[in-house]
Amino acid sequence: MVSIDLNSDLGEGFGPFRVGADDDLFPLISSANVACGAHGGDPLTMDRTVRKAREHGVAVGAHPGFPDRAGFGRRAMALTPAEIRAEVIFQVGALGAFCRIAGVPMLHVKAHGALYNLAVAEPEIANAIALAVRDVDPALRFFALPGSALEQAAIDAGLPVMREAFADRAYLPDGTLAPRALPGSIIHDPEVAASRMVRLVTDGTIVALDGSTLQLQADTICVHSDTSGAVAIATELVRHLRDAGVTVRTPGSGS
Amino acid sequence: MVSIDLNSDLGEGFGPFRVGADDDLFPLISSANVACGAHGGDPLTMDRTVRKAREHGVAVGAHPGFPDRAGFGRRAMALTPAEIRAEVIFQVGALGAFCRIAGVPMLHVKAHGALYNLAVAEPEIANAIALAVRDVDPALRFFALPGSALEQAAIDAGLPVMREAFADRAYLPDGTLAPRALPGSIIHDPEVAASRMVRLVTDGTIVALDGSTLQLQADTICVHSDTSGAVAIATELVRHLRDAGVTVRTPGSGS
Amino acid sequence: MVSIDLNSDLGEGFGPFRVGADDDLFPLISSANVACGAHGGDPLTMDRTVRKAREHGVAVGAHPGFPDRAGFGRRAMALTPAEIRAEVIFQVGALGAFCRIAGVPMLHVKAHGALYNLAVAEPEIANAIALAVRDVDPALRFFALPGSALEQAAIDAGLPVMREAFADRAYLPDGTLAPRALPGSIIHDPEVAASRMVRLVTDGTIVALDGSTLQLQADTICVHSDTSGAVAIATELVRHLRDAGVTVRTPGSGS
Amino acid sequence: MVSIDLNSDLGEGFGPFRVGADDDLFPLISSANVACGAHGGDPLTMDRTVRKAREHGVAVGAHPGFPDRAGFGRRAMALTPAEIRAEVIFQVGALGAFCRIAGVPMLHVKAHGALYNLAVAEPEIANAIALAVRDVDPALRFFALPGSALEQAAIDAGLPVMREAFADRAYLPDGTLAPRALPGSIIHDPEVAASRMVRLVTDGTIVALDGSTLQLQADTICVHSDTSGAVAIATELVRHLRDAGVTVRTPGSGS
Repeated sequence: MVSIDLNSDLGEGFGPFRVGADDDLFPLISSANVACGAHGGDPLTMDRTVRKAREHGVAVGAHPGFPDRAGFGRRAMALTPAEIRAEVIFQVGALGAFCRIAGVPMLHVKAHGALYNLAVAEPEIANAIALAVRDVDPALRFFALPGSALEQAAIDAGLPVMREAFADRAYLPDGTLAPRALPGSIIHDPEVAASRMVRLVTDGTIVALDGSTLQLQADTICVHSDTSGAVAIATELVRHLRDAGVTVRTPGSGS
Repeated sequence: MVSIDLNSDLGEGFGPFRVGADDDLFPLISSANVACGAHGGDPLTMDRTVRKAREHGVAVGAHPGFPDRAGFGRRAMALTPAEIRAEVIFQVGALGAFCRIAGVPMLHVKAHGALYNLAVAEPEIANAIALAVRDVDPALRFFALPGSALEQAAIDAGLPVMREAFADRAYLPDGTLAPRALPGSIIHDPEVAASRMVRLVTDGTIVALDGSTLQLQADTICVHSDTSGAVAIATELVRHLRDAGVTVRTPGSGS
Repeated sequence: MVSIDLNSDLGEGFGPFRVGADDDLFPLISSANVACGAHGGDPLTMDRTVRKAREHGVAVGAHPGFPDRAGFGRRAMALTPAEIRAEVIFQVGALGAFCRIAGVPMLHVKAHGALYNLAVAEPEIANAIALAVRDVDPALRFFALPGSALEQAAIDAGLPVMREAFADRAYLPDGTLAPRALPGSIIHDPEVAASRMVRLVTDGTIVALDGSTLQLQADTICVHSDTSGAVAIATELVRHLRDAGVTVRTPGSGS
Repeated sequence: MVSIDLNSDLGEGFGPFRVGADDDLFPLISSANVACGAHGGDPLTMDRTVRKAREHGVAVGAHPGFPDRAGFGRRAMALTPAEIRAEVIFQVGALGAFCRIAGVPMLHVKAHGALYNLAVAEPEIANAIALAVRDVDPALRFFALPGSALEQAAIDAGLPVMREAFADRAYLPDGTLAPRALPGSIIHDPEVAASRMVRLVTDGTIVALDGSTLQLQADTICVHSDTSGAVAIATELVRHLRDAGVTVRTPGSGS
């Protein structure tokens, strides 16, 4: 039976500040990337988000990002590899404490925003992240764009890799994400996004921005949480997957 | 053979910002209360401080404080018990990750500054801290002023308590610390501070501010790290203890 | 012709983080209390909020709060009067720069959250705020609960006072706000809130929590921005005021 | 009579956290670049630093930096020009309030750390800074490396430029600073640093890293505040300048 993991970034609000659509997305996804108090989240929100994930049977992962709250971790910062390593250990370690107390296994790590994007291209940053994660727990699944420096760093570190596809993004023929500046790089139509992902899951192919057909393997699909159409895309995607007989679940969980 | 633990707050600087006299105090003490990134410290500093402690054979504990860096955690903040609990889990959890990676056991927790002071008097806050610590690890030793709400909360939570004395502070006849506003409440003379502590350790008594003699039990002596005379007091204290045949060490460690 | 000022706390979100209902409230109110980057807001949001206020013909004031973003400035903090003074100068000064550049006069200051609440009761804190505001600009109107230490401090500092009423709060017979813990202290029904405020404006009286009628003078009415019913209350209030022939405007502005 | 301005970054500590050697440098310099609460400083420290500058007869300027305290504003951050503009207005505006209250004119602005370095090379960032400064006050003197995008942006914005030389840095033959990675790029010997600057001031030339002699104009010399030898270099420089008959003062101030 075919299955796929759906992941979303949750728990990114803090105090009274809201971002993302946690309540709408929890029922739809199978993995939550939980903010760790740097780009978003705070201790109380982390505690609550881990418990909500447990209620929804959603797997929990850490979502470390640059320590830049006003920029939401989306502004590249020139941290040294040693600083990145320490940030990742700190953030993943903090979330791990909430998970242990809630009796929820922390299953994966996904870098956030500019940290993820820099690590896609820069092996030094990718290695800093991957080695930090390995040092915290070598069983943690590492979310990475296939073919990226991030994936390679995880492989080199001996971490189990979850290759990630993006429901709302177009691809170039070489399997990389089409830069946001390119027309057509963002998929806004939930129907289109959902169809593309079903094909990816069931057939292992996706149509690139130039119309060519591309082989692409994915273990998890990212549904963004803070774009206006995020819930619509997730809803449509879940419906299409169900219609295609695909189960939404984290690998290793009961179907 | 008589022994006593000496503790100090270390790792409270961050980035290029300095506070405290870590390098001078590490060789003198047996337990380091390591800042966890809230009132002081940052991920890289936490990592380095844990490793320095290991090099010096100094036991490591977490030193959670209010999330108020500019105020250094010394300004009381009206957090709810739920917020305090989450802060403590977050901070202790983050330090724990660095400890596990460095192969250093995290042995104790000591609340910092205003958080400690509020918890001395307010059972609701004391319980929030103690229960958070127990949830992280019920074997963590809990540093507390004898006779305080903090000590009682730790006892109620089933945590091992380390009763704490303060080398540079005068006591009232009831065993509480003399308020800082009172003349004579702060002991500035290293010789005096050291003599008082040796008597406390070897005889179980201390002279209170009114001249009366007080029974007081202590498992650990706090040597403050960021007062001008901290190193002088610690140095003198170590010398006096050695002359009195008292070993400076954490309970359970080799002598 | 009778008029009244309506004020609301705006610009409290920052980066992608949302709080409050700025877009809905701007068309309804006459004075915006703009967050200054401490409890909420950031430089870019301050700039945008000042410009939005200008577009809507809404007067701009500074809304300084405790430097505690995760707590949204609602958790009391034990700052010294000197620290409070410096915080207020810093925050009001920063907003003033955006106002001057946008060609918008900064007309008033209203302390936020726990800072306001502490200053209602504690003259030392109230004086620190009022003297800081006077030092920045003695023409700044100072929003204060009538009869409070905050009002007295403003009078003592020679600042023009705007006496403030709260649309969604019940009053005790002595004119103070009924504590939130008391049943009935929060007015949820927009119709009721609006009627009470119209009576206050046109008649100078309000019914206290015990049913007695109370004399109360107000120059401005606070419509909270971040409670669920804020927009409903503001909308109803504006409608009732218009029906009663009361103009919503800042003193000194064209009608 | 020949004169030169000496500038240093001061007021960068905050709360109990120390960085820099303010007390030693104030008697030696003529212009203080005062941190504005982002990369360093806090409201109380800003207030105190402005008053100390007044006591020492040292001119005050704003020293805005990236909002990254743990990184001390030295880690490049990918802020948009609009974000940079707003940060500069916010920080310069906040310091301006303390200056007005202390009766001290704010005479200049110098960008800090990574913000300065990025703006040396990137016109878009340089323009964002210069236009923000002009909007705050077009009379503010703008410190910039001669020949840089930063200088050009200030010229384009109509700001008075203060061309800056660095006492502890070597130069390339084209007048740019030798990258720190190059051997010999940092001048550690106070005697050497002082001699080079005296020649620069009296002769308009400096020996570049390759031994060639370079024409260079400077209106102000930066003496770094947080390197170990900062005070030694500043002391030696002041002595050499005095011996050469050069007065240390801000342009326009009494000699």
